Amino acid sequence: MPELFTVVTPEEALAKLKSNLTHRVEAERVKANLAIGRVTAKAIYSTDNLPTFPRSTMDGYAVIASDTYGATESIPAYINLIGEIPMGQPSNLVLTRGNMAKVHTGSMLPEGSNAVVMVENTQVVDDQTIEIVRPVAPGENILQVGDDISKGQMILPEGHLLRAQDIGGLMGLGITDLDVYGRPKVVIISTGDELIPPNQDITPGKIRDINTYSLSALTLQSGAIPLTTPIIGDSFDELLDAARKSILEADMLVISAGSSVSTRDLTSAVIEGLGKPGILVHGISIKPGKPTILASIEGKPVVGLPGNPVSALVIFDIFCIPSIYMLAGCDSPPDKPNVEAKITHNLASVTGREDYIPVKLRTSDDVIFADPVFGESNLITTVMRADALVTIPLDQSGIYEGEIVNARMFR
Amino acid sequence: MPELFTVVTPEEALAKLKSNLTHRVEAERVKANLAIGRVTAKAIYSTDNLPTFPRSTMDGYAVIASDTYGATESIPAYINLIGEIPMGQPSNLVLTRGNMAKVHTGSMLPEGSNAVVMVENTQVVDDQTIEIVRPVAPGENILQVGDDISKGQMILPEGHLLRAQDIGGLMGLGITDLDVYGRPKVVIISTGDELIPPNQDITPGKIRDINTYSLSALTLQSGAIPLTTPIIGDSFDELLDAARKSILEADMLVISAGSSVSTRDLTSAVIEGLGKPGILVHGISIKPGKPTILASIEGKPVVGLPGNPVSALVIFDIFCIPSIYMLAGCDSPPDKPNVEAKITHNLASVTGREDYIPVKLRTSDDVIFADPVFGESNLITTVMRADALVTIPLDQSGIYEGEIVNARMFR
Repeated sequence: MPELFTVVTPEEALAKLKSNLTHRVEAERVKANLAIGRVTAKAIYSTDNLPTFPRSTMDGYAVIASDTYGATESIPAYINLIGEIPMGQPSNLVLTRGNMAKVHTGSMLPEGSNAVVMVENTQVVDDQTIEIVRPVAPGENILQVGDDISKGQMILPEGHLLRAQDIGGLMGLGITDLDVYGRPKVVIISTGDELIPPNQDITPGKIRDINTYSLSALTLQSGAIPLTTPIIGDSFDELLDAARKSILEADMLVISAGSSVSTRDLTSAVIEGLGKPGILVHGISIKPGKPTILASIEGKPVVGLPGNPVSALVIFDIFCIPSIYMLAGCDSPPDKPNVEAKITHNLASVTGREDYIPVKLRTSDDVIFADPVFGESNLITTVMRADALVTIPLDQSGIYEGEIVNARMFR
Repeated sequence: MPELFTVVTPEEALAKLKSNLTHRVEAERVKANLAIGRVTAKAIYSTDNLPTFPRSTMDGYAVIASDTYGATESIPAYINLIGEIPMGQPSNLVLTRGNMAKVHTGSMLPEGSNAVVMVENTQVVDDQTIEIVRPVAPGENILQVGDDISKGQMILPEGHLLRAQDIGGLMGLGITDLDVYGRPKVVIISTGDELIPPNQDITPGKIRDINTYSLSALTLQSGAIPLTTPIIGDSFDELLDAARKSILEADMLVISAGSSVSTRDLTSAVIEGLGKPGILVHGISIKPGKPTILASIEGKPVVGLPGNPVSALVIFDIFCIPSIYMLAGCDSPPDKPNVEAKITHNLASVTGREDYIPVKLRTSDDVIFADPVFGESNLITTVMRADALVTIPLDQSGIYEGEIVNARMFR
């Protein structure tokens, strides 16, 4: 009996897959300046105070705050200028009452000073005397040692996806090397007697392999390493052999099956033969992509994708990208950009099924419109012409023209 | 007179910069399978029809449509099975009236056939006879040669940012090499007498360079190549010398100045000395980042950023990332992910200024809340603790607690 499966909702399917993915890629030590997009494998603690010295946060004058109390435009405080603290230099000055020092944003404060008066609230009388027209409170316009980060404080947790500011912050603390999870290795196998590599000439009945390349591109975009194999024909033994080697050597295996029922049955049999726990989900209430297989082999994800290039792309996006991030230590992948748009056609669906519709976006009179891209749903060109995907949720039987929908950008 | 500038709105500033960026990075030929995220330097035309042979889009039987007319469950059509067309094989069969052939999704059609009956609408009577219970129209469940793409058709325009489906589609057409714009080289110079490299020990008055690394990370994320220089002190001659060399060798120059007024004046004088047209914008009605300098030197962007790490990060995001994409041939960069969230505090701003507030997101009872991250606004740790930026538009004097805002994710 071919392709007997019980469909589950996309949400259930993803939860089932995630709860079985116990494998993580081994950590490695990398230079912080190249760690953008990587995930911390350990919590990171500060080895220093930040700032390491008391600093001014303004251009102005370092003072003893009480010297300025009561100062106004009409009755200014006159304070004695004893010197300037240049940027990047230690301060050798010591302030006593009635004295102050010129400072810049970022300057070290002189000993004895507890506030900075902004230059805008002062007037130069002569070389040695400055008029102050507004009082400052102790602590105003200055940072004390450790105000930002104190030594020993956790600055980034384990499992944190590193962004530009994190890299900057690490460098600012002198942390130039850190432990991150390795990049997952993802084997992508395209199967089908009809497939030939893109650099070969087409003969009748043959088509060029698309999925190896579109899925490799998504893998690269997710920060993982795609490993490709030569195309495998519709042979159980060959596919099982290639799949076994792959799941041993790599962190994840994706098989894009042929599009006919028989080749999908073959993929399912091969995945079942790989190990435990094996197939978790076979059949998802989603369009495109219903015959998807989600499996776990000793904590590593194995996904059997429908062969049609649009299904493969959509399903990879929904199930494989979160898996890649999990393998790399990050439990939730960054969202894709999305926009609210007005749909321009009625779109029918079926209650109990989640539909993904490619749309082309256009703006007219400040309104963003989403035009569904029609055409044979299994042609890669329909998604090449599209900018985004619109979802018709499980509990709706369609979307009416004019409704505002959330369009999730392809990138 | 130091720092005399007329502020313009962020929108005007970006438009002025963009209209002056005539430079483009030279095109290069790359392998299509590595071209994800690159931008096409020429329009791409199909050299083939797709499909190249008439194909079935279903598992079923290739027929002559008129043989099925009038078929119902009660009065089925009986048609003679003359063979099967295996996947990936040329068809040697020729259909005549009353005959049909078994096909798979993707199979080549036999000569004479003009439709496919889905297997679900058939019943096997014996080895040679199949019952058909629903009629098909000519063209149903098949693709003719060129239905998807016809030879000579433009498949991607110039200036197109390549996504996974584009890579797949190119490979499917046998286009394995293509011309894309090169990756822009962006020189990032951090200046300031107070700066030391992150791997050096801190001495009083010194701080470790942050901006070189946070801005390099953003550059990498935008698909460009960051080139860094040793830290330059507050010296006009040294900075002018480094800036001149950089703008000759690279496609873009970013100078992160010290945070005091005097060092910003120095940056402005250096940029003015680089060439024509020079400074376009000096001062933007934005917080953080008001003293930003936007310039163009012979069509290449030169940006003078405020030295404080948060301003530098925000301004780089708003003005430098679109510039990088333009240099790489793409006029509008992909959006960042964003979410709608409920702000949890009143936030004051000033009418006529655009404010960017870092927020931390949290979900509670299915509502996403945005908690503003308070603290000294020029500390990198405030943005390390944040997930997203919320904008207070130019024409608003603030946001009230409980309002729904658009939070733009850092990534």
